[in-house]
Amino acid sequence: MFTITSLKNGLANVEGFYCDAVNCGLRPDPGQGDLAFIRSDRLCTISAVYTTNRFRAAPLRHALRYGKTFEGNFILANAKNANAMTGEAGIRDVEEILAALPAELDARNPVMSSTGVIGYRLPLEKILSGLQRLDWNAKNSDAAARAILTTDSFKKELCFEVELENGERFRIAAIAKGAGMINPAMATMLCFIATDAAVPAEEMEELLEEAVSLSFNRISVDGDTSTNDSVFLMANGASGAYDRDAFAEALKRLTFELAMMILRDGEGANKVVAFEVTGAASDEEAMTAATNLSNSLLVKTALFGEDPNWGRIASTIGASGIACDEERLVIRYDDLLIYDAEHRELDPEREEKAYRIMKRDSFRILCDLGIGTGSYTAYGCDLSYDYVKINAEYRT
Amino acid sequence: MFTITSLKNGLANVEGFYCDAVNCGLRPDPGQGDLAFIRSDRLCTISAVYTTNRFRAAPLRHALRYGKTFEGNFILANAKNANAMTGEAGIRDVEEILAALPAELDARNPVMSSTGVIGYRLPLEKILSGLQRLDWNAKNSDAAARAILTTDSFKKELCFEVELENGERFRIAAIAKGAGMINPAMATMLCFIATDAAVPAEEMEELLEEAVSLSFNRISVDGDTSTNDSVFLMANGASGAYDRDAFAEALKRLTFELAMMILRDGEGANKVVAFEVTGAASDEEAMTAATNLSNSLLVKTALFGEDPNWGRIASTIGASGIACDEERLVIRYDDLLIYDAEHRELDPEREEKAYRIMKRDSFRILCDLGIGTGSYTAYGCDLSYDYVKINAEYRT
Repeated sequence: MFTITSLKNGLANVEGFYCDAVNCGLRPDPGQGDLAFIRSDRLCTISAVYTTNRFRAAPLRHALRYGKTFEGNFILANAKNANAMTGEAGIRDVEEILAALPAELDARNPVMSSTGVIGYRLPLEKILSGLQRLDWNAKNSDAAARAILTTDSFKKELCFEVELENGERFRIAAIAKGAGMINPAMATMLCFIATDAAVPAEEMEELLEEAVSLSFNRISVDGDTSTNDSVFLMANGASGAYDRDAFAEALKRLTFELAMMILRDGEGANKVVAFEVTGAASDEEAMTAATNLSNSLLVKTALFGEDPNWGRIASTIGASGIACDEERLVIRYDDLLIYDAEHRELDPEREEKAYRIMKRDSFRILCDLGIGTGSYTAYGCDLSYDYVKINAEYRT
Repeated sequence: MFTITSLKNGLANVEGFYCDAVNCGLRPDPGQGDLAFIRSDRLCTISAVYTTNRFRAAPLRHALRYGKTFEGNFILANAKNANAMTGEAGIRDVEEILAALPAELDARNPVMSSTGVIGYRLPLEKILSGLQRLDWNAKNSDAAARAILTTDSFKKELCFEVELENGERFRIAAIAKGAGMINPAMATMLCFIATDAAVPAEEMEELLEEAVSLSFNRISVDGDTSTNDSVFLMANGASGAYDRDAFAEALKRLTFELAMMILRDGEGANKVVAFEVTGAASDEEAMTAATNLSNSLLVKTALFGEDPNWGRIASTIGASGIACDEERLVIRYDDLLIYDAEHRELDPEREEKAYRIMKRDSFRILCDLGIGTGSYTAYGCDLSYDYVKINAEYRT
């Protein structure tokens, strides 16, 4: 038994962690930071999950030298410039910046994390001068959470306190960013998780990968996968407390809630939809169908139009290439039967009910294929004019 | 040696073929037909390529009883109702409609082809009454071409006359429709091709499949694949003329030009872009990269915004999972170098040139991966506000 409680002020709650942000001139609005750090005053185990994109950005290629799990205590993050497709020079820039950290921080295996436009070198002078103005002993989670945002419309920051049965407590907190380029295979997102739980180093990767597979790997805004996506978990053990089940649960809940915040803030998105596929020949086939649904432009525009056009749902499942049969398929929106072999055309009463469900901020589309026992849930959003506007105008 | 000449009035030019259309009340605008036929006064060899969607519509399931190549002389087409996801009842409706054709037509293995909304039974009375008003001896290609359109903004109709070295001639003509749900794996499109060439029955399938693989299977408007896509090739041999090379070339040119018309008429599209991938490890990997580019929302919105943001091109290639290397990649827009390892940031002069290229109605994006000899070209279009508008409002 354990209890999980929400706390305000994100990273600031976690023992031994410090964070701050400044504007160093990458972002035109001087009121919002663009350079942030998260550090621990004692050595952490750090595990990371990175994008599957073959063109990994320079900071990822730098961090990967340490392996997927390593000892360290320092992450520097910047917005507005991805330092991607910048070649060996981009990696040298990371090294030069991190070499400039004050010696008294005792930064061990420090890493960078960048987001923004691809193909431009980092402006070293701006960043090196920004480093001078960071307060290394601040616990300014709000500023750090805001500094890493790009097209996001609100900050993503969470903290949980976990109380174990024996009365011991630990905390886990995170900041994240991500709004477009969100895809089931890791998204244009960054997430930095800090915990004072005493997580054994050998359990870190498995715990993080399972949490990511249930959260960030299930959301889709536009089906694109960026060069910079990263999730870092830093555990410094300062609380002395740990219980695997409790920690796994807290980590899953944290990453899932952040994933839903990212999706709700999807570029131009107005609603979040869970695509729950059951009865597939296998879990893999269910995943194929669910992720195809969450990525389909025709489904996404029908969600935006609040049109209970189940034909687009069926057509997308059929096009995904998995085993399915129109005589066995059942589609529901929340608890409302939309389609089965006995109820193909929507009568006015069910159509009216379907409209009401689709007007909600979030609802579930359940597709039972009636073939086997495979299941998977993916999460998506609608596609609106604003998505097109944001992405047609992003760089210019 | 042979010559290919364009003729007006599409299907009307082909010996032995007749076509007409009427409005039978499926479409609200009585000025545009919604029920059309194409028939030959002598028996044809008919080959067909159908959608890969697992939920094939009732008329396809009906036609597939005859096999992919069969003897026949009659196709009936309707708009506004796909007769898809309608179960066995949908197939019985097709049978009932086709059984009502006048005996004097001597319709042999007649088939239907439908497009429109999924999940509703065909209105039999309207269609049966419409049959009474069709002129079976008309050569009204224009009316037939207009009757099959859905969200298309212009009709797609072509005819070529082919003169062989020995002075013999044959003709090949087609009408097509398709605007949204256009995907490399067959699109929400219908295409009816009629020829008086004496094509040997055993060569039909191979000729048609090759032409489709180079045309309709290479275009993407939105990455969705419908339940009804079909391409029919009807050859009645009335001209007595045939030469395999000449016919193959005419068929390829016909289907490619129709594919480009479909793409140019893509829902909300303003420009057509050829994504030419070369230097891939294999043709398959080149196809993966090219089709990912033509389907990427971030690429499509950048095209709409006329933003030479090559980072989205590179990121999409990297995300496609194929072998690639940022040191070897070269990206060009038409003849303009956009990216290579020596030229990563766009200088103002190249950026200005890139803007001018992107303002064109059509241009090429060439990506050489520098890995091997695999190549593939896919064709796509931009994604605009109008795509969202058309698809959010389609059914209602």
